[in-house]
Amino acid sequence: MKITLGDITQALGGTLRGNSELHIKRISPLASAKAGEVSFLSHAKYAQQLSQTQASCVILTPDSASGVQDWLSQGRAWIETDAPYLYFAKLTQWWKQKHAGALKAGVHPSAVIDPSAQIDPTASVGALCFVAAGARIGAHTHLAARVTVGEGCTIGQRCILHSGVVIGADGFGFAPRADKSWEKIEQLGAVRVGDDVEIGANTCIDRGALDDTIIEDGVKLDNLIQIGHNVKIGKHTAMAGNAGVAGSATIGAYCSVGGGAVILGHLTIADHVHISASTTVTRSITEPGLYTGMFPIDTNADWEKNAVTLRQLHKLRERIRELEKRLPPAPEST
Amino acid sequence: MKITLGDITQALGGTLRGNSELHIKRISPLASAKAGEVSFLSHAKYAQQLSQTQASCVILTPDSASGVQDWLSQGRAWIETDAPYLYFAKLTQWWKQKHAGALKAGVHPSAVIDPSAQIDPTASVGALCFVAAGARIGAHTHLAARVTVGEGCTIGQRCILHSGVVIGADGFGFAPRADKSWEKIEQLGAVRVGDDVEIGANTCIDRGALDDTIIEDGVKLDNLIQIGHNVKIGKHTAMAGNAGVAGSATIGAYCSVGGGAVILGHLTIADHVHISASTTVTRSITEPGLYTGMFPIDTNADWEKNAVTLRQLHKLRERIRELEKRLPPAPEST
Amino acid sequence: MKITLGDITQALGGTLRGNSELHIKRISPLASAKAGEVSFLSHAKYAQQLSQTQASCVILTPDSASGVQDWLSQGRAWIETDAPYLYFAKLTQWWKQKHAGALKAGVHPSAVIDPSAQIDPTASVGALCFVAAGARIGAHTHLAARVTVGEGCTIGQRCILHSGVVIGADGFGFAPRADKSWEKIEQLGAVRVGDDVEIGANTCIDRGALDDTIIEDGVKLDNLIQIGHNVKIGKHTAMAGNAGVAGSATIGAYCSVGGGAVILGHLTIADHVHISASTTVTRSITEPGLYTGMFPIDTNADWEKNAVTLRQLHKLRERIRELEKRLPPAPEST
Repeated sequence: MKITLGDITQALGGTLRGNSELHIKRISPLASAKAGEVSFLSHAKYAQQLSQTQASCVILTPDSASGVQDWLSQGRAWIETDAPYLYFAKLTQWWKQKHAGALKAGVHPSAVIDPSAQIDPTASVGALCFVAAGARIGAHTHLAARVTVGEGCTIGQRCILHSGVVIGADGFGFAPRADKSWEKIEQLGAVRVGDDVEIGANTCIDRGALDDTIIEDGVKLDNLIQIGHNVKIGKHTAMAGNAGVAGSATIGAYCSVGGGAVILGHLTIADHVHISASTTVTRSITEPGLYTGMFPIDTNADWEKNAVTLRQLHKLRERIRELEKRLPPAPEST
Repeated sequence: MKITLGDITQALGGTLRGNSELHIKRISPLASAKAGEVSFLSHAKYAQQLSQTQASCVILTPDSASGVQDWLSQGRAWIETDAPYLYFAKLTQWWKQKHAGALKAGVHPSAVIDPSAQIDPTASVGALCFVAAGARIGAHTHLAARVTVGEGCTIGQRCILHSGVVIGADGFGFAPRADKSWEKIEQLGAVRVGDDVEIGANTCIDRGALDDTIIEDGVKLDNLIQIGHNVKIGKHTAMAGNAGVAGSATIGAYCSVGGGAVILGHLTIADHVHISASTTVTRSITEPGLYTGMFPIDTNADWEKNAVTLRQLHKLRERIRELEKRLPPAPEST
Repeated sequence: MKITLGDITQALGGTLRGNSELHIKRISPLASAKAGEVSFLSHAKYAQQLSQTQASCVILTPDSASGVQDWLSQGRAWIETDAPYLYFAKLTQWWKQKHAGALKAGVHPSAVIDPSAQIDPTASVGALCFVAAGARIGAHTHLAARVTVGEGCTIGQRCILHSGVVIGADGFGFAPRADKSWEKIEQLGAVRVGDDVEIGANTCIDRGALDDTIIEDGVKLDNLIQIGHNVKIGKHTAMAGNAGVAGSATIGAYCSVGGGAVILGHLTIADHVHISASTTVTRSITEPGLYTGMFPIDTNADWEKNAVTLRQLHKLRERIRELEKRLPPAPEST
């Protein structure tokens, strides 16, 4: 398929400087782009790469364009836009649709769909999926191969559930018996996933115990994430891989949670809170901001010395206190 | 379906105070329960919620009943029992069976079962499961959709394996060759899962290298847990999501392991040991108790300052030692 | 099936001391081996177990054989080899093939294979797998049951992909819109897996955004690992369960990554770097060696005291500084 710069700007806008007939074969990162390829400058800090790239066309802000004025004489081009990264995102969508076509609606014949499940006719359900009784899959939503949507769970419109996702397994709920064995608490709630939600491969969202587990519109979950029962995740929050959220935690909107982070149960996290990777949230967070709790990496030898000392830290504090008591008061500064 | 309080206490016992003809439409949490709904008071510390709930009936201890004596005159009711949370658990089971019916025994036609596998006729095997040669599934055990039970592995009675579970993948065993590449150690053991075990979505239990990996009766595993080869988990131990147990670790009975915790290989953990979330167990634990190792969360700015200092902690200790040497001895207390 | 020591050494070499007609029923760990079983001494530090084992034959180095010279008179035997652990690994392979036969090539009828996918005729594709358009599976590679290989992804020769693996789900890429919702960046790259790679159950490797995600020859990945888009993992690197690698990280060859470790995005890690379990890699590592960052486990009571103090660590350092200023200079040593 022949794609020209003119095709791109006609579809996506932006101001093209250079030859609209130029053929584009590929979208590439700035550092490795070659002739015949289009790239993008997402941030001024990569301007050095701009001066070295071999790309035939770069998407950039009008401000950054000052650095490429001599490209015209080289037969190269650029596209000016106020939001180059967003433009790039839309370009990948347009590019994929151009090459692969729109996703075909319908249910793969190998998928197992309960007769009482409702699949929107515009939805696409991949091979070997299982959609249980009473589940609903919204318009233009795509279930990749091998996805489970459990009984009574609902998935909104334009969602993407990647391969291996499990929606609506039982939440982890047990009451202790007198002999310390466990009595199962049947999980009577469901999972409700809003619109425009993307859920990564092998991620699990458990059904609620009594009420539903709720994932609001626009939430983006990476792979291998565990969402416990009765969790609520606010709109447009994004979570990276291997993160886990324990039961009944409420996470606000526009938050981000780094890879491997753990959020304990029954906590409330405000909107616009950002949790660093590998951080464990042990208390509710009421103020927006960036929060971290992660042991700094070191050579193993140095780590060992510091870790041993860390286990005596409280005693070290007492020794400092003792020293402070034994010293005469500091002389007044003059 | 019409359910009355009388139906409930007839099935589950307890002492009903109030009108046994009262209709119950739903089981709800105390804080959000409305008229026509039944709730429970699991602990006296939630007594404040009791005074505010709209529930028509609450399950509570005889002691807590003093707070609701005026309910009778309001047409409301309560059920007295010594273990309200356990009663609630049994109520959820009764409720589910009442509404959804008992799980249908049998193998879903889309499941792939090796002819040499033995599935108890009372077991229920969901859609798109794979049960390999020589595997055995016990009575009344339920495999949700898309579960794998590998060759020669055995699952006991009344177990629940949620969607995406993988039992009996190869353990992670390799011998280093002289050139530092890896020679596979075939995993010749299997996995033996006892009775009344529940295994969460996408959790993996690897087969043993030579002997079997063993999960004893009543163990409860949450989602996305990794259990390495030759691990042994004692009865009624519970583990939360994203936890991992490396090869040949032996975990006692009645333990709990928090979300995201990691237990290193070849360790032994006694009975009644509780590991906090996000804690890494690096040595055997011989005494019952609660153990923790987790970096406390803080604002990123404060964390950064403390983390930088932590990397010099050993030197700080030496500076304290030096200060102590340079000070005259503390005056004796009189 | 009857197996004699002579069968073993004829197939795998080594120097047999003792009766080649001795029957071997099982391969067992040294500590639990019984008569009729063969075991191995992988390291001289287990010599104590050697003196107590009931094994009929042990694989060991010529040096270690001094401890078993009296076995001949007991009708017992040993196999001398310079690399007993490697010999044991090969023995497990030979043993499995002897008992289970070679893996049968071919595609299970329940697997769903896109007509444009290329499956080598010697490959084995398990039940309920999905192999998408344009994917390629190399010679003698084995896909266990319920594996997904996404569009255009390639798997080399002699690989093993365990149940639940997802190759080629979309990488986690989104551009923020002005309203802080997310615009999807279509992931146009693929995943390329080299030869002799083993990938554990439910592990996920995402496709690249523009370029491909690359797993080089001989890499071994345990279960439930997340590999982000555009990651590159060098040959013969091994990673343990629950580990996660964020997008665009480059990991060298011959590295090891412990269970639950997290490697942040866009980092570069040199060859021969070893990362301890539960360690978060937050910066590039240029020197080979062992690196660690993990909070030491303690009783919860002690942990609490130390954790509270840790949050004031920076202030403690300032107090030490202050003390040092207030003390007279240390006397010169004579």
